[in-house]
Amino acid sequence: MKKYCYGICFLISVAINILFSIHLYVGDGPNQEISCRSSLTWSEKAAAEAEAVAAISCSGHGRAFLDGSISDGQPVCECYGCYSGTDCSELSPGCAADANSGDPIYLEPFWMQNAADTAVVISGWHRMSYEYADDPMMSPELDKYIRKLHSVAGNAITQDRYIVFGRAPAMVFGVGSSQLLSAAVYALSSQNSSSPSNVLASTPFYHLYKDQTRLFNSKNFVYRGDTNSWQTNNTDVIEFVTSPTNPGGELKKSVTGGKTIHDHAYFWPQFTPIPGPSDHDLMIFSLSKLTGHAGTRFGYVVYAVLASSFFQLSSVRWAIIKDKDVYDKVLNYIYLANAGISKDTQLRVLKVLKVAMKADGKPFFEFAYNQMSDRWNRLTSVFSKSTRFSIQRRHPLHCNFFHQTRQPSPAYAWVRCERQEDNDCAAVLKAGKIIGQSGSTFSAKDRYARLSLIKSQDDFELLMQRLTELVSLENHNIEMI
Amino acid sequence: MKKYCYGICFLISVAINILFSIHLYVGDGPNQEISCRSSLTWSEKAAAEAEAVAAISCSGHGRAFLDGSISDGQPVCECYGCYSGTDCSELSPGCAADANSGDPIYLEPFWMQNAADTAVVISGWHRMSYEYADDPMMSPELDKYIRKLHSVAGNAITQDRYIVFGRAPAMVFGVGSSQLLSAAVYALSSQNSSSPSNVLASTPFYHLYKDQTRLFNSKNFVYRGDTNSWQTNNTDVIEFVTSPTNPGGELKKSVTGGKTIHDHAYFWPQFTPIPGPSDHDLMIFSLSKLTGHAGTRFGYVVYAVLASSFFQLSSVRWAIIKDKDVYDKVLNYIYLANAGISKDTQLRVLKVLKVAMKADGKPFFEFAYNQMSDRWNRLTSVFSKSTRFSIQRRHPLHCNFFHQTRQPSPAYAWVRCERQEDNDCAAVLKAGKIIGQSGSTFSAKDRYARLSLIKSQDDFELLMQRLTELVSLENHNIEMI
Repeated sequence: MKKYCYGICFLISVAINILFSIHLYVGDGPNQEISCRSSLTWSEKAAAEAEAVAAISCSGHGRAFLDGSISDGQPVCECYGCYSGTDCSELSPGCAADANSGDPIYLEPFWMQNAADTAVVISGWHRMSYEYADDPMMSPELDKYIRKLHSVAGNAITQDRYIVFGRAPAMVFGVGSSQLLSAAVYALSSQNSSSPSNVLASTPFYHLYKDQTRLFNSKNFVYRGDTNSWQTNNTDVIEFVTSPTNPGGELKKSVTGGKTIHDHAYFWPQFTPIPGPSDHDLMIFSLSKLTGHAGTRFGYVVYAVLASSFFQLSSVRWAIIKDKDVYDKVLNYIYLANAGISKDTQLRVLKVLKVAMKADGKPFFEFAYNQMSDRWNRLTSVFSKSTRFSIQRRHPLHCNFFHQTRQPSPAYAWVRCERQEDNDCAAVLKAGKIIGQSGSTFSAKDRYARLSLIKSQDDFELLMQRLTELVSLENHNIEMI
Repeated sequence: MKKYCYGICFLISVAINILFSIHLYVGDGPNQEISCRSSLTWSEKAAAEAEAVAAISCSGHGRAFLDGSISDGQPVCECYGCYSGTDCSELSPGCAADANSGDPIYLEPFWMQNAADTAVVISGWHRMSYEYADDPMMSPELDKYIRKLHSVAGNAITQDRYIVFGRAPAMVFGVGSSQLLSAAVYALSSQNSSSPSNVLASTPFYHLYKDQTRLFNSKNFVYRGDTNSWQTNNTDVIEFVTSPTNPGGELKKSVTGGKTIHDHAYFWPQFTPIPGPSDHDLMIFSLSKLTGHAGTRFGYVVYAVLASSFFQLSSVRWAIIKDKDVYDKVLNYIYLANAGISKDTQLRVLKVLKVAMKADGKPFFEFAYNQMSDRWNRLTSVFSKSTRFSIQRRHPLHCNFFHQTRQPSPAYAWVRCERQEDNDCAAVLKAGKIIGQSGSTFSAKDRYARLSLIKSQDDFELLMQRLTELVSLENHNIEMI
């Protein structure tokens, strides 16, 4: 018996050894496996800090951030609108739905689901220089990925053209697209101060076009208002063509025949069917509305001048650029204004875009489209019950990205108050506890108001609730104001 | 025997079990211990990537970065000037010393020595919003640390004043100090376009003052040149006061008595003795020259208006701000130009400043000062042997930070070619294989040239070598050109 006992004990002990060995070299789950196989040193502390902050519970109604205010030694929850308390669990009962800003938080869940692939570690000595090795201001790797992204999304022609000295000069990065609007006006404007260029936009339009153009009180360009009211023969025109429009979401073309700045901030498959690649002289895109990283402040100009000829010499492609002067001016503007944009930002954008482009962009754009499409389905259902309020009509188009005919799902609802007396639509909505932007903010009538549909799910749910209440009151013939 | 064998085998097996257990729960070394004690999940991959890139050997003459060009699946080394090869080990024998740019790489070793404390992990969902919880554009935590930093360095008064509604409104962050130069001119300028404000600077000065002011061709302000040539009675003057000067390194005061923009980019203990805190109306500081993170593009305005009265009410301090209009204009400029600066950048700056401020800033500023001071000792030793070239005189002052009387150790040598015929000093240096910036770049005479002393150690060593050669030739009565 004793001999058998030794034998059995030995076998059990060996079995335990084998289990320990498996545990040690394979791990007992995905997390354990990763952490024990790695041999991190200097980055471990920062990683642990970031994970600790991410693990702080804000009840799904807020976030804690590494650079948040500190209480009891750790960052506090920053609650979404209408929520409060240390863990953001308290909903303020009578709180107004805030649909004012274009804060694109609707994509936050996607980045949380892809946490491992989108985290980025920046060392203390990461790119301290003003310059990259191959470019004074812009990351060549990021430039490359942006071009690939447009190939994938099919929304702009950025590949295989305008290549000089083995480097593609046709893109300029800026601090958000906002900075590039102003750089573009500068670059396209007359250098003759006695006869400034005339800056125009089509109502309703983003107020920054007007505000920026006026800010510098330049002798070279002057803001002139709406394209429709521009009746003179003066052809020195710089026209903002916002396509899709903000608000509205419609695809647009130039109406003046002058020089154009195509603002394509919303020209992505989640907001609009992509009928084909845009190929205009000067196009501006933004990270903010593409991936939702508004806080990262990144935009870029694609300056797509027509190369009058080009040829290939070994691996270096050459192009003769016409009108390179405009491109140089945009570049010079960014150089003089701020010597380029943060290298940290460019690294983060690279990381984010790599994930957005996985599997030819399908998981990312489908997630984003489904979010917007679901919101529009719920929104149209509410407005269909109203005669007091209407929203913009949407026109289905074939989308080259999804290979389907689809409805647009714009970032904003453009609400019209239909009753004669409701000539301040934002005020009517406000009385119904909904905060939107007045039509006049977009140089339109105050009979209109803009409601943002791209904020967090909490914000959207509350907006739906308040809209439903408002429309339900209307149907019970109770006046709000 | 068989029985003993079972017994011994069993004991050995149990011993192995015990060893495995110890290994599993304690680890077999510092790295293993850290990684197996931690339970990192989503951040581990990014951390491992960053460490792998940091471990790429570039022979100490270059760096690999996460966003560098990829070859064979990993980022390639980006070599410092004059070095080449896949691991940057090949020195080009006749290479010129490049002392042209103000790239502040001299502090890179400090950040490498403090790798664990300065790494930062940015999650995919970090601050996607345009706004912080308590501020539309600026991190309140960062604001707080910058104020502390000035208390520690003793170079500007930023604490305990100008507090409105519990929030300190007197700081505005910009995309590098460069953007703020232009924001400040805008904010201080006349709104009367028939009589623009006159922008002046004292020669030699940083060319951006002139280039930026001219860029917008504004009706509100116009660049007028040097303060010395400004003889009219027109008092609508905006004067750039660069203190310490670039180049030169001298502390300066306003000479016109007009409105002032104090550019304090170099007003830190490593470059100049700090005689006391600066307390001017509008002061501009920059991260670039403070910590060496030029690529991060971060600067700030301290708008130190005098509060005409203030009182304290519970924990909220109030102040009545006079001339708040200027502050609002700077803020509005940054908002309209680019809706604030990248949140990723602000997070990184916070992390870096926290390390710089450890132990009241002593380790950081001593490291930085020692670097600059050593370089100046070697530089003056070379120039003391020359009659052909001279550099600026430096005047010792008491430094309130180091509590000692010290020589300034400016970021740049301002070289004067003494020989009558050497009226293009940059060309003379260039013939001696030294690349500097011509005096005329700073609106001075070309008899002067600027040499940067804040680049990498490699760059400085080569500069020393070339200067030594040049001076040695002079002493052997051999003409260079």
